[in-house]
Amino acid sequence: MIESYYQAFETYRLQHTFDREPTALYSPVNYIMELGGKRLRPILALMGYELFQKDYKPALPLAYAIEIFHNFSLVHDDIMDAAPLRRGQATVHQKWGLNTAILSGDVMLIYAYDYLLKLDAADRIADIVRVFNRVAREVCEGQQMDMDFEVRTDVSIPEYLKMIELKTSVLIAGALEMAALAAGANEADVRHLYEFGRNVGIAFQLQDDILDTFGDAAAVGKQIGGDIVQNKKTFLILKALELGNSTQKAELNKLMNKDSNIDIEEKIAKVTALLNHLNIREVAQELKLEFQQQAFAHLHALTIPAERRATLEALAHQLLDRNN
Amino acid sequence: MIESYYQAFETYRLQHTFDREPTALYSPVNYIMELGGKRLRPILALMGYELFQKDYKPALPLAYAIEIFHNFSLVHDDIMDAAPLRRGQATVHQKWGLNTAILSGDVMLIYAYDYLLKLDAADRIADIVRVFNRVAREVCEGQQMDMDFEVRTDVSIPEYLKMIELKTSVLIAGALEMAALAAGANEADVRHLYEFGRNVGIAFQLQDDILDTFGDAAAVGKQIGGDIVQNKKTFLILKALELGNSTQKAELNKLMNKDSNIDIEEKIAKVTALLNHLNIREVAQELKLEFQQQAFAHLHALTIPAERRATLEALAHQLLDRNN
Repeated sequence: MIESYYQAFETYRLQHTFDREPTALYSPVNYIMELGGKRLRPILALMGYELFQKDYKPALPLAYAIEIFHNFSLVHDDIMDAAPLRRGQATVHQKWGLNTAILSGDVMLIYAYDYLLKLDAADRIADIVRVFNRVAREVCEGQQMDMDFEVRTDVSIPEYLKMIELKTSVLIAGALEMAALAAGANEADVRHLYEFGRNVGIAFQLQDDILDTFGDAAAVGKQIGGDIVQNKKTFLILKALELGNSTQKAELNKLMNKDSNIDIEEKIAKVTALLNHLNIREVAQELKLEFQQQAFAHLHALTIPAERRATLEALAHQLLDRNN
Repeated sequence: MIESYYQAFETYRLQHTFDREPTALYSPVNYIMELGGKRLRPILALMGYELFQKDYKPALPLAYAIEIFHNFSLVHDDIMDAAPLRRGQATVHQKWGLNTAILSGDVMLIYAYDYLLKLDAADRIADIVRVFNRVAREVCEGQQMDMDFEVRTDVSIPEYLKMIELKTSVLIAGALEMAALAAGANEADVRHLYEFGRNVGIAFQLQDDILDTFGDAAAVGKQIGGDIVQNKKTFLILKALELGNSTQKAELNKLMNKDSNIDIEEKIAKVTALLNHLNIREVAQELKLEFQQQAFAHLHALTIPAERRATLEALAHQLLDRNN
């Protein structure tokens, strides 16, 4: 079922590749858009639209705009993170250099607006662009907060939650909100769908934090402990710093430090043991569950027949019920 | 008279500074917007609007959107050019680092759309955003062409003119076009005003090329010969390569080469002598005049009383009648 949205999106995308001059500007755009991914945000936009309309197809330009924006943010974030790889392939700046990566990203952001304007929703288009602006701005703010946090030692848990909300979940929430607006949903439904997406996004990121440390490498599909190795102050670490006694805090701060010379495996083992000792996994799972419950409460509050939301509900469960 | 538009714009700008969190993201935005400049593009937007309306004030959000976009492009271009200074002050990436310069630029581009949507022109807003998208995309394409030209040896004069059109003049033209659209001008007038701006922009850039080599340092306000020192293939050089005999071409290619070890003053003198020998200054002035005449023909074709266009005409003369 979800597969049909994916296929429809991919078909639209392939009909709208960037076949323009100068090729030095647009080849990287086609490259990053072609790298794949789950297409989660555009699929959510299509599903969100279909909650209120018979056919999701009129929402395809919106879905594409959102995916272009998402990939723009990946191109620029990869520069900022000095990341050599994205989905197992060279990042744009790695392959074409810094200048082209900046400029190709810029033109993608502009194209996102171009596709937004292709939506057949004349009387609502200004409202939709306004939501897009708010979301896009918040994504930038979240990225800046994330960069700020790297050099700060006093990040609080509310600040961390705000950061992941901005960096990750507002785009998911916004995709659904814009879809609802485009479909002509009423104000309360637009709001509920936004809140559903916002809470799903935060729950998803918390799950990501949990899996990165406590997951099963084979199931997660990546090395376990990456966040610890990179000294990332995720929810797990911040909570341990809050709950631990002064000895435990000191040990954690000593371990999670780029000047620490400890062997990587030993570091992961020691930090994980400390987190286990403080029951952090359970605390994180509980918080994740709270956001998850909030999400479904908002989904169920929509003024539409329950069967209409079944596919979206199934997708959310698929996203949030990974082994943790 | 032009001063009053400038003052009105500055007042609006100071009422709409970027006083938001995170400050690491928005301080650079305030910094670059505060660096000054002639505010040519926003002033043109205000004047363009006033051609068709009693009062230019409703166009202030449009003027601000255009100036924010222009400054976004400066922030990112300065990274690409590795420029340490902008208007005599440190560039954003120099002062705050690469990552912040990329991200602050991104958020400026988003804010440009935000201010566009503040225009009180509900039924025309989608058309205005569409023009903005086209212009923004073309500015990126022009910047990429400029970067491509640095490593190419076969740039033709039509290609060069296309590059300066995209990089410089479409934003000037677009400012006027969007202003006319916002003011509810008829289709022909919108087109004439765009063409006026496009031709003024190209003439202005040709004048810039001429002054950089043949100007008076005191009058121009910068060192003469900068383009030659940087081996820039401006119209002057491209025309000399077209008109010169094989000996002259070989000499010019040898001089305008980053591997050339020649003393800077001697290089400027020799290239200038060669250009003089081929009458390049006059050829360039003639071409500039052609674009200038085209510009005024379009201005005069507007279906408005001649006195309404007097201020805009005076500004164009002020821009284009510098000593050359």
